[in-house]
Parts: sequence; C-alpha cells; structure tokens
Amino acid sequence: MKKGEQTRQKIVAAAAAMFNQRGYEGGSLTDLMAATGLQKGGIYRHFSSKEELAAEAFDYNWKQAWQARIGAVDPNAPGLARVKQLIANFVEHRSPVPGGCPVLNTAVDADDGNAVLRKRVLKALRTWRMLLESAVDEAMQRGEAKRGVDAKTVATLVISSLEGALMISRIERSPDALHRVQEHLNHYLDTEVALCPE
Amino acid sequence: MKKGEQTRQKIVAAAAAMFNQRGYEGGSLTDLMAATGLQKGGIYRHFSSKEELAAEAFDYNWKQAWQARIGAVDPNAPGLARVKQLIANFVEHRSPVPGGCPVLNTAVDADDGNAVLRKRVLKALRTWRMLLESAVDEAMQRGEAKRGVDAKTVATLVISSLEGALMISRIERSPDALHRVQEHLNHYLDTEVALCPE
Repeated sequence: MKKGEQTRQKIVAAAAAMFNQRGYEGGSLTDLMAATGLQKGGIYRHFSSKEELAAEAFDYNWKQAWQARIGAVDPNAPGLARVKQLIANFVEHRSPVPGGCPVLNTAVDADDGNAVLRKRVLKALRTWRMLLESAVDEAMQRGEAKRGVDAKTVATLVISSLEGALMISRIERSPDALHRVQEHLNHYLDTEVALCPE
Repeated sequence: MKKGEQTRQKIVAAAAAMFNQRGYEGGSLTDLMAATGLQKGGIYRHFSSKEELAAEAFDYNWKQAWQARIGAVDPNAPGLARVKQLIANFVEHRSPVPGGCPVLNTAVDADDGNAVLRKRVLKALRTWRMLLESAVDEAMQRGEAKRGVDAKTVATLVISSLEGALMISRIERSPDALHRVQEHLNHYLDTEVALCPE
C-alpha cells in the first residue's frame, strides 16, 4: 500500500471513531488533527469536504459492525437458526469502533437533512434487512417456516427491536433490555415463524 | 408571567427544536440568536451554560412528546387497551417539535458522555416504562392478562421496537416499519399477554 493511501486510511479510521461517538456535528477538525497527528492541509489533501470524510467514516463503521454481526454465522445452517445467530451476535458482539451502532447514530444525525449520509444509512439498512429476509425466505422454501410468513415484517421487527434495545442498554449501561428483546425474538421465531419449534 | 420568564421560555422553545433536529453538538449560539432575535448576552443572562440550556430543552421536548403519547388515552379503559392506545399514539401522533423522538435523539447524543443529559433521558425512559408496566400489572390484577407475564419485558419490548421502528421510518420517510411493528405488538398483546384476546 502506498504511503498516501495509508495516511488516507488512518484518517478514515480516526474519523470513524470520532463521528460514531460525537455525531456528525460534534466531529471537529481539531480533534481529528490530534487523533491523527496531521495538520489541516494533510487531512484535506485527501478529502474535499467534511461530508465526504463522514460518508467514508460511516462506511468504515458499518463494515466493522457488519463483520461483528455476521461473524460465526454458519452459511449452511438452517435459515431460522441463522436469524437467531444474527440476533445473538448483535446482543453479544460489539463492533471494535466505540459509540454504538453506526446505523442508529447516523440515522438520528441524517434524518433531518444530510442527504449524502442518509443515502449511506439507507443502503446499510437495506443490506441488513435483505440478509434477514433471505434467511426467512429460505426457511419457508425448505419447509422450516410457516407458509405465509411475511419475511419483511420479521426482518423489520428484528432490526427495530434490537436497535431500540441497544439505545436503552447504552443509556442504562446494562444489557438487560437487549437480553429481554433477544428472548422475545427467539420465542417469536419459535412460535410464530417456525413450522415446528426447534 | 413576567417578561424575563417569557423570554426564558422563548429561548427554551427555540433551543428545543434546534437540539432535537441537530443534536447537542450541532446546536449553535448563532442559530439560537437568529431563532430568538436575541444577542448572546440576552441568552446567557438566563442560562449559565449550553449544558443547562440543553437539559431544559430536553425536558421541554419530552413534555411535548409525552403529551402526544398519552393524549386521548382513557385512564378508565382496561390496562391492555391502554397499552394498545399508547402504541397507536406513538405511531400516529408526533410531537409538535420537529426532529423525532427526543429520548432516542438525546440518548444517542448522551450515551458516550454528557452526564447531565444522560440523567434526564434515563428519567424520561423510566417514566415511560413505568406507565406501560403499571398498565400491564393492572391487567394482571384484574384477570385481563395471564398471571406470570413479566410487565418489565412487555414495556421494554414496546419501547424498544417502537423507537427502532421510528428510526427506520424517519430515515426511509415511510411509516411502513412503524405499522409493521404496531401490528406485531398488538398481536403479541392478544396472544401472549392477554388471558382472552379482545
């Protein structure tokens, strides 16, 4: 990797942690200079605007979170077992970037304006929902799940309740809300989605 | 009301909309001066710090959101009917302050630091959960709900899934996620919580 590319990646990694904890507005050039040891010119040689840097930082954060979420999921396991594993990963494994879920953090930042960031969050949300939907669809095709289950509803419920519980758990500094939601989702998958409970 | 108190309230209302849309870090004195027509000195005569103003702005936002959520709930209706009405209010009625749910917005801002704001969010979250919990407890006492239902789990699930769905709905600019979650919660209350479905 060339030196310029290394520097660029160092800036993105530092910006990723900064924006994920402090938000788009809270991220400052001064903090970024301190975190990277670079001067203003050394940072803006690589990025044309704060928005461009924030968009790349979001993608970096999402990649880290995504790897934590899909880690150790066996692609050959039955569909509903994969959904449960994805839920467990969300509850138990955090991304190495501090500050919580980048989708939640950036959605709250971007829902009132920033079009570039909003587009990235929408894409991440769609990717995550599609992964869950396709696992549920596969379970239906294999006769593991009831016919007529709405895969989009299952995926929406999983994402909504986990994101909301993460918000509560982070502000309460306790995993209690996440554990309660995980138990509910597993029970729901067994009783409402699966043809025969595991 | 004295003129000083009127001015103070005007500042809080303007700050409330600003912080709810742009976050704690995104709220600037310049914007607040433009929104209120006051000079810096005229604003900081009433508030000792940005943190104090943000805390009062949060309380203002929470009060507006709370009124939208508890509006038209009949206190004499059965417990589970009240829970369903609270869910419907969340889905259908927005607070008049733009920017989404102040608990979600401020939680994401405060979970990594700001102790004063975090305390206010925790209190609001507890108030909301207690309202839901007491409705479920009452339903159990009246023989409307199954004995052994965990009221804290019901309340946690309702809050988590609604907050997460609101995040998705705001970023997608569609009520779809909120409607799917509402349907799930009502079905869950009928089948897992109620002794006899309505």
